[in-house]
Amino acid sequence: MPQSAPRYAAAGVDVDANDRLIGRYRALAEEASRPELAGAIGGFSGAFDLSRYERPTLAASTDGVGTKVMVASLAGRLEGIGRDLVNHCINDILPAGAEPLFFLDYLAGNGLGEDEKAAIVAGIARACREGGLALLGGETADMPDLYPPGEFDLAGTIVGVIEGGGALDRAPIEPGDAVIALPSNGLHTNGYSLAREALGLRARDENARRARLSGHEDELGEPLADALLRPHRSYLADLRPQLPRIKALAHVTGGGIAGNLERALPDGLGAELDARTWAADVPPIFGLIRRRGGISIEEMFRVFNMGLGMIAVAAPEHEEALLAGLHGAIRIGGTAPAGGRTGADRVRIPHMEAAADA
Amino acid sequence: MPQSAPRYAAAGVDVDANDRLIGRYRALAEEASRPELAGAIGGFSGAFDLSRYERPTLAASTDGVGTKVMVASLAGRLEGIGRDLVNHCINDILPAGAEPLFFLDYLAGNGLGEDEKAAIVAGIARACREGGLALLGGETADMPDLYPPGEFDLAGTIVGVIEGGGALDRAPIEPGDAVIALPSNGLHTNGYSLAREALGLRARDENARRARLSGHEDELGEPLADALLRPHRSYLADLRPQLPRIKALAHVTGGGIAGNLERALPDGLGAELDARTWAADVPPIFGLIRRRGGISIEEMFRVFNMGLGMIAVAAPEHEEALLAGLHGAIRIGGTAPAGGRTGADRVRIPHMEAAADA
Repeated sequence: MPQSAPRYAAAGVDVDANDRLIGRYRALAEEASRPELAGAIGGFSGAFDLSRYERPTLAASTDGVGTKVMVASLAGRLEGIGRDLVNHCINDILPAGAEPLFFLDYLAGNGLGEDEKAAIVAGIARACREGGLALLGGETADMPDLYPPGEFDLAGTIVGVIEGGGALDRAPIEPGDAVIALPSNGLHTNGYSLAREALGLRARDENARRARLSGHEDELGEPLADALLRPHRSYLADLRPQLPRIKALAHVTGGGIAGNLERALPDGLGAELDARTWAADVPPIFGLIRRRGGISIEEMFRVFNMGLGMIAVAAPEHEEALLAGLHGAIRIGGTAPAGGRTGADRVRIPHMEAAADA
Repeated sequence: MPQSAPRYAAAGVDVDANDRLIGRYRALAEEASRPELAGAIGGFSGAFDLSRYERPTLAASTDGVGTKVMVASLAGRLEGIGRDLVNHCINDILPAGAEPLFFLDYLAGNGLGEDEKAAIVAGIARACREGGLALLGGETADMPDLYPPGEFDLAGTIVGVIEGGGALDRAPIEPGDAVIALPSNGLHTNGYSLAREALGLRARDENARRARLSGHEDELGEPLADALLRPHRSYLADLRPQLPRIKALAHVTGGGIAGNLERALPDGLGAELDARTWAADVPPIFGLIRRRGGISIEEMFRVFNMGLGMIAVAAPEHEEALLAGLHGAIRIGGTAPAGGRTGADRVRIPHMEAAADA
């Protein structure tokens, strides 16, 4: 409608600006498309044609990126956070052996400009294109009062397809299987509330926060912002050709290495890992957080990925091929009887200190 | 893991409490299940078996409930907001003629207790069960600093299936088709930022806000909270048997009647509505908002649903059956050549004042 909406705009919601944004979002979504996109049937939802799949099972996951959004808005770097979101979700459905199909985003905030919203969605679209997903739809909401001025939250939903039993081997996991990990490039999208506290990024004074974030850190060899905002790695391209050699995958998110690897293990089976095997690859941001925050090693391992982004379990005969075929892969241990331990306690990690103090 | 996480808890994220919540969420999700639920393949995403569909096309939509979440938290009534979310999303894929299959939720907040989170998810699960959807998964995030203490945001994603061309008639819309509306029961989930401003619910003092919300309003015949928190109606059960008689549907959300109905109309065609036809059914909350806020009639129609939750377009020969078969349905007008008008201007609504001052 041509009229302006002065009162609603004064209440923090600019309907005209949102109308303009829809055009920019559409152009971005066109960069991240797939032939199965069926256009907007009925005009209120996206549609995706699945008829080329014989017996499809869908895998779906919703997630956010935690308070990494606050680090991104403080730094004024918004495109990366969209990539974080998509890559996190891609990794979440890899353990199901699913092929990612499409993505929908939810962006809610207070006082974000059109360019800022478009930058976030541009990052989402770019990561969708790189992962072969269609950006099927999304919602942008202006929520005055709920979010502090200039802040936003970001979440998304991925839908993928599994044909037959999925792309993974799925043979039963047995004692003596190899546990192989792919390194993370930083915190990915977990533990930012603790990291922000440890690093002084929860200070009341915004200028102090911004100075800390943009300042060069000798221990890191780069500004803190660079280390904290490095986008979550997608393991899709690396792992896809190797999935038939892998029995199970664990995406290392909240709960850490043990809390996530245990989800991939059958009852009665555990894993013995050796943190010295990957200590040299742990990004220095973890040690900085630990020292600045005075955080125990156990809590570091419970909250952060501690250098490992994805963990695979495979039969011993595939170990060599996986280590050769997966860029940066490290054998970090093997499976073993749980010996009465349950839950995450089934995963034992001696020499944690080697990785924690890297 | 058995250890507590004192530092992370101090930063506003209680990992132990979240572990406990997972069990409660699981019990709630079991109430909202379907035989196609394939269990958690791989453990990191939900899975849904589509193999019984011949040539499925998926319809998907992500949405939130706007700052209705702030009204719900102020009133301490949390279950309804979960129903709002699911019903809103169900209505969003009805225009595609889709059968709802499953739902995923995103709940992010600051300082919400376990019982509060469980109440919100219980509302989501209940509405999923009523709509025949599986609650496939979700994410609960503690976001200290991003949300004010006690506040939260809520969004969700629905996935439905279209077989063949979908359940609707889909014959071309022609001049002289009937435009038939189903009443809303209140604001549903749009326009809450403007409504809160008009009704004094953005006052700085929380006690003042709470008193206004809980106070009885003579004009409404009920407390303001009751009128504002009535959950979004789902039109699925009413509309499902009638879909073969309907050419197109418009879910009346942000943008109002004209802004949404135009999305259902082909180029060159418009609609002539008469607001007097439904004026008697407009919930009194709209008139209260308009008078208290001094809002123009045009803006009211642009921001709010003004008493109509869903609008159907049908051939004249089906009008009688639809009016008889759809509880509360009203013929509000008909389609007509747009006469050079474009966008939402194609929808003309004379006598707006009859509905605005109800």
